Amino acid sequence: MNRICQLFGIRYPIVQAGMVWCSGWKLASAISNKGGLGLIGSGSMYPDVLQEHIRKCKQATSNPFGVNVPLIYPDIEKHIEIIVGERVPIVFTSAGNPATWTGYLREKGITVVHVVPNVKLALKCEDSGVDAVVCEGFEAGGHNGRDEITTMCLVPQVSDAVSIPVIAAGGIGDGRAIAAAMALGADGVQIGSRFAITRESSAHDRFKKFVTSATDTATLLTMKQVMPVRLLRNRFFEEIRELEQRCADVQELKDHLGRGRAKKGIFEGDLEDGELEIGQISGLISDIPAAGDLFDRLLREYAETVSILNKDAFFKSDEVL
Amino acid sequence: MNRICQLFGIRYPIVQAGMVWCSGWKLASAISNKGGLGLIGSGSMYPDVLQEHIRKCKQATSNPFGVNVPLIYPDIEKHIEIIVGERVPIVFTSAGNPATWTGYLREKGITVVHVVPNVKLALKCEDSGVDAVVCEGFEAGGHNGRDEITTMCLVPQVSDAVSIPVIAAGGIGDGRAIAAAMALGADGVQIGSRFAITRESSAHDRFKKFVTSATDTATLLTMKQVMPVRLLRNRFFEEIRELEQRCADVQELKDHLGRGRAKKGIFEGDLEDGELEIGQISGLISDIPAAGDLFDRLLREYAETVSILNKDAFFKSDEVL
Repeated sequence: MNRICQLFGIRYPIVQAGMVWCSGWKLASAISNKGGLGLIGSGSMYPDVLQEHIRKCKQATSNPFGVNVPLIYPDIEKHIEIIVGERVPIVFTSAGNPATWTGYLREKGITVVHVVPNVKLALKCEDSGVDAVVCEGFEAGGHNGRDEITTMCLVPQVSDAVSIPVIAAGGIGDGRAIAAAMALGADGVQIGSRFAITRESSAHDRFKKFVTSATDTATLLTMKQVMPVRLLRNRFFEEIRELEQRCADVQELKDHLGRGRAKKGIFEGDLEDGELEIGQISGLISDIPAAGDLFDRLLREYAETVSILNKDAFFKSDEVL
Repeated sequence: MNRICQLFGIRYPIVQAGMVWCSGWKLASAISNKGGLGLIGSGSMYPDVLQEHIRKCKQATSNPFGVNVPLIYPDIEKHIEIIVGERVPIVFTSAGNPATWTGYLREKGITVVHVVPNVKLALKCEDSGVDAVVCEGFEAGGHNGRDEITTMCLVPQVSDAVSIPVIAAGGIGDGRAIAAAMALGADGVQIGSRFAITRESSAHDRFKKFVTSATDTATLLTMKQVMPVRLLRNRFFEEIRELEQRCADVQELKDHLGRGRAKKGIFEGDLEDGELEIGQISGLISDIPAAGDLFDRLLREYAETVSILNKDAFFKSDEVL
């Protein structure tokens, strides 16, 4: 049996990423109901909002779901308290030290997954008792690591280094990429951008439509001096780039960024002054389907890809060299 | 039959990249003799040296081989003249406008492939009569595009956009990645870094050994203001980074780069002051095998990956949704 399905008690090893301003209970429950793992993105929620989303998610699905917790979140203790109190079975942590919360969460019977951008942190996760790692490549949307390792390079190296299950993330927008990730050694995949552009995503319609018109060159990793983030090119992006090109210091960049830019862009649909976090694979996204229909499509594309790959293999394992 | 095998008249759709200071007749003929496509890298050769390598390659293999020609090369006309005169059957062009030489080369009966970093240039290649494109991702070693599109994102988008065959490049260091590239929609793969670290590669032994000790975080894309290039971190890299961080202008960067840095690093083995061009997948490279043995290993790993992927598929195409 697939190790990710076994770990989470789910049918298909497909995780919907917990994304700010996109992944509330509607999206998470839709994916969990299909047999994947839905995640609530707590990074854009106040504690009471998170609690409400967890409760609604429990009502909307009887299948396992989880919460994504960025460890840099200021009210992290309150978030953890709610997650434990509501008996959420699975937590994905990111952007912080995996040693800080893993032990506590596992004592409470929670399965812990941590997001990593390199082999060193994957090994640290394993040492800290983390149950699985998400290898997130350079092409992923939103905040990203400083090492710029792509999914293609990260997944095989982490798979070779650790014995816990590995989930591939970054650049996975269709079933071909799911098959590719599994070929590279992943036990499952985490899909963000593609699920952000579905009906159940709480992103603004203007944002969703803008992503469907994006091309392959529409995003870039920016603000590397502050905290690297992958954004769609828009007016705000160009302003930041201009500041960077004239060597503005970190404080100047932070001041221009201000607060609430991601909410403004993703949730309020301000395409000019908002921070439009999305992955590089957005060039491949051209529709806004229901999340469940998309999930079925991904499964079909994946199965078709595996079948073609096997049928058309240019070298078979029974040919001896 | 596989479209790349058909186009080149080869047995396996695996191309060995034409790399500066690595890919002479020894490496190219070793790969062509195994049924792949070996390429001589003309970018680091004077015209008479290129002619000698082509002649030696013809003596060393009766199978098809090709030459890689960076179109920014100053003596480009002389190179083209030699290639046509020596009746080389296949040319890979890169770093320039595919419209410039494609018509002429094809008139001479030469199969033309062009290296692209985005969908727009792939479409232009198709319009210009190019026979196939290499999609080279951000993770690839040496000179790279400005769009920073990774192999995982580039291959499916180019495959969807063009009808000519697509070769995936960047981040392909073992048979798992070959299977992944084929899953993403590629008809074949081009492998650089992994073949650069073989006995037949003309790189210096110190360079080869240094690459075998590299980790996943050892390379970065740098010198973006001049011409983006992926390098191993060393003293020279840190000097460039320091200049960039204090916003040095293009001329200052060019002056510090000077001439002959890649030769110094790769061919002469100066690990401190040389430009050490190699791909991000170097973290996966841990030995210096004979190129032919490596080729066999890649085939076996690829076949094994396809077989496991098919056997362990979590969803089969005969399951109806």
